[in-house]
Amino acid sequence: MPYRAAVDDFTFLFDHMVDFAALRDTELFAEATDDVTRAILTEAGKLCDEKLAPLQRNGDLHPAKLENGVVRTSPGYAEGFQAIAEGGWIGMSADPEYGGMGLPMTLTSAVNEMMSGACLSLQLAPLMSQGQIEALEHHASDAIKDLYLPKLISGEWTGTMNLTEPQAGSDVGALASKATHNGDGTYNISGQKIYISWGDNDFAGNICHLVLARLPDAPAGTKGISLFLVPKFIPDENGEPGKRNSLNVVSLEHKMGLHGSPTAVMQYDNAIGWLVGPEQGGMAAMFTMMNNARLGVGGQGVGAAEGAYQLALGYAMERKQGRAGESGTGTIVDHADVRRMLAGMKADIFAARAIALSCAFATDMARATGEKSWSTRAALLTPIAKAFGTDTGIAVSETGVQVHGGMGFIEETGAAQFTRDVRVTAIYEGTNGIQAMDLVGRKMMDGGEAAMRLLDEIETDAEAARATFPNMADAVWQATETLREATEWMTHQTDMNARFAGAVPFLRGFARVLGAHLHLKAAMADRGGARERLARFYILRLLPEHAGLLTHAQAGDTDLFALSAEDLAA
Amino acid sequence: MPYRAAVDDFTFLFDHMVDFAALRDTELFAEATDDVTRAILTEAGKLCDEKLAPLQRNGDLHPAKLENGVVRTSPGYAEGFQAIAEGGWIGMSADPEYGGMGLPMTLTSAVNEMMSGACLSLQLAPLMSQGQIEALEHHASDAIKDLYLPKLISGEWTGTMNLTEPQAGSDVGALASKATHNGDGTYNISGQKIYISWGDNDFAGNICHLVLARLPDAPAGTKGISLFLVPKFIPDENGEPGKRNSLNVVSLEHKMGLHGSPTAVMQYDNAIGWLVGPEQGGMAAMFTMMNNARLGVGGQGVGAAEGAYQLALGYAMERKQGRAGESGTGTIVDHADVRRMLAGMKADIFAARAIALSCAFATDMARATGEKSWSTRAALLTPIAKAFGTDTGIAVSETGVQVHGGMGFIEETGAAQFTRDVRVTAIYEGTNGIQAMDLVGRKMMDGGEAAMRLLDEIETDAEAARATFPNMADAVWQATETLREATEWMTHQTDMNARFAGAVPFLRGFARVLGAHLHLKAAMADRGGARERLARFYILRLLPEHAGLLTHAQAGDTDLFALSAEDLAA
Repeated sequence: MPYRAAVDDFTFLFDHMVDFAALRDTELFAEATDDVTRAILTEAGKLCDEKLAPLQRNGDLHPAKLENGVVRTSPGYAEGFQAIAEGGWIGMSADPEYGGMGLPMTLTSAVNEMMSGACLSLQLAPLMSQGQIEALEHHASDAIKDLYLPKLISGEWTGTMNLTEPQAGSDVGALASKATHNGDGTYNISGQKIYISWGDNDFAGNICHLVLARLPDAPAGTKGISLFLVPKFIPDENGEPGKRNSLNVVSLEHKMGLHGSPTAVMQYDNAIGWLVGPEQGGMAAMFTMMNNARLGVGGQGVGAAEGAYQLALGYAMERKQGRAGESGTGTIVDHADVRRMLAGMKADIFAARAIALSCAFATDMARATGEKSWSTRAALLTPIAKAFGTDTGIAVSETGVQVHGGMGFIEETGAAQFTRDVRVTAIYEGTNGIQAMDLVGRKMMDGGEAAMRLLDEIETDAEAARATFPNMADAVWQATETLREATEWMTHQTDMNARFAGAVPFLRGFARVLGAHLHLKAAMADRGGARERLARFYILRLLPEHAGLLTHAQAGDTDLFALSAEDLAA
Repeated sequence: MPYRAAVDDFTFLFDHMVDFAALRDTELFAEATDDVTRAILTEAGKLCDEKLAPLQRNGDLHPAKLENGVVRTSPGYAEGFQAIAEGGWIGMSADPEYGGMGLPMTLTSAVNEMMSGACLSLQLAPLMSQGQIEALEHHASDAIKDLYLPKLISGEWTGTMNLTEPQAGSDVGALASKATHNGDGTYNISGQKIYISWGDNDFAGNICHLVLARLPDAPAGTKGISLFLVPKFIPDENGEPGKRNSLNVVSLEHKMGLHGSPTAVMQYDNAIGWLVGPEQGGMAAMFTMMNNARLGVGGQGVGAAEGAYQLALGYAMERKQGRAGESGTGTIVDHADVRRMLAGMKADIFAARAIALSCAFATDMARATGEKSWSTRAALLTPIAKAFGTDTGIAVSETGVQVHGGMGFIEETGAAQFTRDVRVTAIYEGTNGIQAMDLVGRKMMDGGEAAMRLLDEIETDAEAARATFPNMADAVWQATETLREATEWMTHQTDMNARFAGAVPFLRGFARVLGAHLHLKAAMADRGGARERLARFYILRLLPEHAGLLTHAQAGDTDLFALSAEDLAA
């Protein structure tokens, strides 16, 4: 059973789960008609199934390699990237003025997720370019935009993000890379950057690095950071790759997975760069890019989960073992525990996918309408979409291994690769712990207003569903009340450590409730259908997890820090 | 911070958590004095820290290889096995008549767990021999015992178990390997076996395979299975390895982890074997062996968790990032979310370790006293110790990766290896789904009597702790009541699918409550100490998970099977 992108699921989500019509009614997205949406999903699905999915194993078996300072990518990756570029998929949401399609992020997120399920390590390349395109659109000068955007959007060139340094990971403000002004509008950039995804490749004419660095006398911390565009080849007067810039791939990391994606240590030695945004405005520029990148990484998790699920389901429907089971096929899909695993995987994928899409939709509405209620909604949902999407990727692919039994531990099966590849998504673009702290910290600086407004909406929907599905509606309503209490508790903590101590279980409890709401909505749209049955599984079996999580979330930090580092080492 | 076996934790467990004095009072284990126990733990700890832990990376970087039909083991593994053998650690619990030490399984389990944390892939070799030793002690003829046991116990020879065939995994009754009687007391064995851990090596003089096969006209299913001992070299008249038997390693699996342990496909072509136990009595013999093997695998999970925890803690105590934190070290151990992760790891390790030790203790008491109440206790705890121990191994090592941030995804760190190595422990020796079904099925054929007796004991302990720790004691008491209701629900289901549909969450909920009980006991024994603080973390933050799990456990199978295979594929 080869990978099939979840076109039907996305079509359902667009039709019933987000108010896509409202988006189409805006001037900005008037062209995103039903016909366009369907054509896009279908075409993207074809690309994923036919061109990208067959590459997935290649990346694992034949990792990207550094040879004489140049990265040689895995077999077929150059052609795969070419196919993505030619379809226009890199610039789906980019400005049409520079060759983009100007489509909503809702649609781009769907396509990105599909591609992630097909071949995560390759999909990371266009995702990096998309982040760069967005940063340049918002913060670069017209000259830079004119030169770089068309080439990034067409896929002729690719982009990377350079934030992390050995001593500056989650604490990006500790970075030490230096920039000095040359007086001619260019800067000299020096320093070492690590964990640079797709830091180099052998299929793009130029690799454009967005690099965070510090100007002389810049203030300490994040306030003193500026953003620079540093291309591998300095464009000549015709905008073609010219002189080689003084930057190098020092080495590639030997990683647990995602072998098809070269993760580089980059060295900049007075490399020529151009400022993007104002001096000392690097963090603001990075944040623009990071919010959507976080949503994109959440989608990577969901995509990997989808791929792992399909592989496990295919195995379960063919593997004969034990007695015939209820429906008499004799395959393990009829064993109660296997059925439970598969149903749980599918239910969590739907929840994570719907949360991610809700987040993308809010992002689009914010952009199209300028309404603050939408931008705060998007901001609230982003860390949840990232962390729950990637946690779901890890958990579902783990369960996929288990469904395979002994075969799951054998690499040839491909189940293990999903777990190894997706593992990093909970780490990069801000660890899931950072996401949770963002949720209970920055995203609740409004006193929890954005969260409470969302909870109100959920309860309204639950009330409306009560006549149709009394048990499910009541469970969702009750869980929302429990979440409301936990949210109130969070917002009342003035000591941030008290919030942070329970941030991760809080985020997961929040996601559980959001997922239940979206499942309930799906059940209402598909009464008596498969989606109602899946919702029942989620709401009656998985949702109950929220209560324990939210109790944990409110335990505070006193007991936690009473357990000293010495206690931990005892 | 190099690996240090958890000698102190085990000493505490022996002193306070199991009634080791009662064991010492039996005739069988009179020699297991405090002094002996301490000396054993200390010596074993030294072996682990100095000889075994340094091999852990070797196995991963230089996997066992098949060369011209012979397995070449990883660098240092031969010497490591030699050290284990010379210390007498293989035969710790074996019959002194054949060179064993006759010590309680409680102690052997502790040592096995320590070795697992040091080098899981190598530790699997003596674990396999231990299983074979036990099977032969219980079921083999005196002639076989006299010949094989001393050599297996001394480590001169090694043992394997051959159950699985391509079409017969969890359903071992489907196996097709054949045996025919030669009329001279020997049998000819033919067939293919897969997933044979340590199926061959280059350090033992002989490899002794215990092989399940079917005699002609044997009944179908598990009732028609017999057990045979099939050595690689047929012993000559002096008991020395003689003629090469007609069995071969066809190939080694390319696995996700545990690369140091060769997992073989074995082919038997009229290989000479000897019957162990009566004809058609193979399953009974295998069950003897499997129960302790399951406990052993549970210990592997806990050991790996310990190793992963120490690595993560060491990293967190050295890694500087962000602000100084509460205690001002500037290392990430003072970040609330990192502290939460580490505390959760340590709390779960303690719970899983104490459960495994309780199970081993019950096994010993059953053997020493012959009392049924102990054997049913051991039988009840075995699937929980296996599944919760290995789930803890997976979850803790996963969290260990997360504590490392980006470094966790880089193989050099070693954190990823723990997750890759330990993953199989939830699969082999009966998947954790099989364990859960064993718990709610076979282990509750007594109507839940053994379970209820255990819950009574927990509530008695909780009552006794109420004056000292009212909150914790009450939480444990309430959780036990919730578990009691779930247990009653389980035992009232006559349709086994209704039980199986919730078996895995039931087992985990059960383990959560058992862990809380053992943490409470530890707190009572260490009032005001680190163990009380750790208990508080577990009981107030992790225990609440039980309620959601036990709700899930009682959801039944109607809704589950209403979600059809077609729904899953939709």
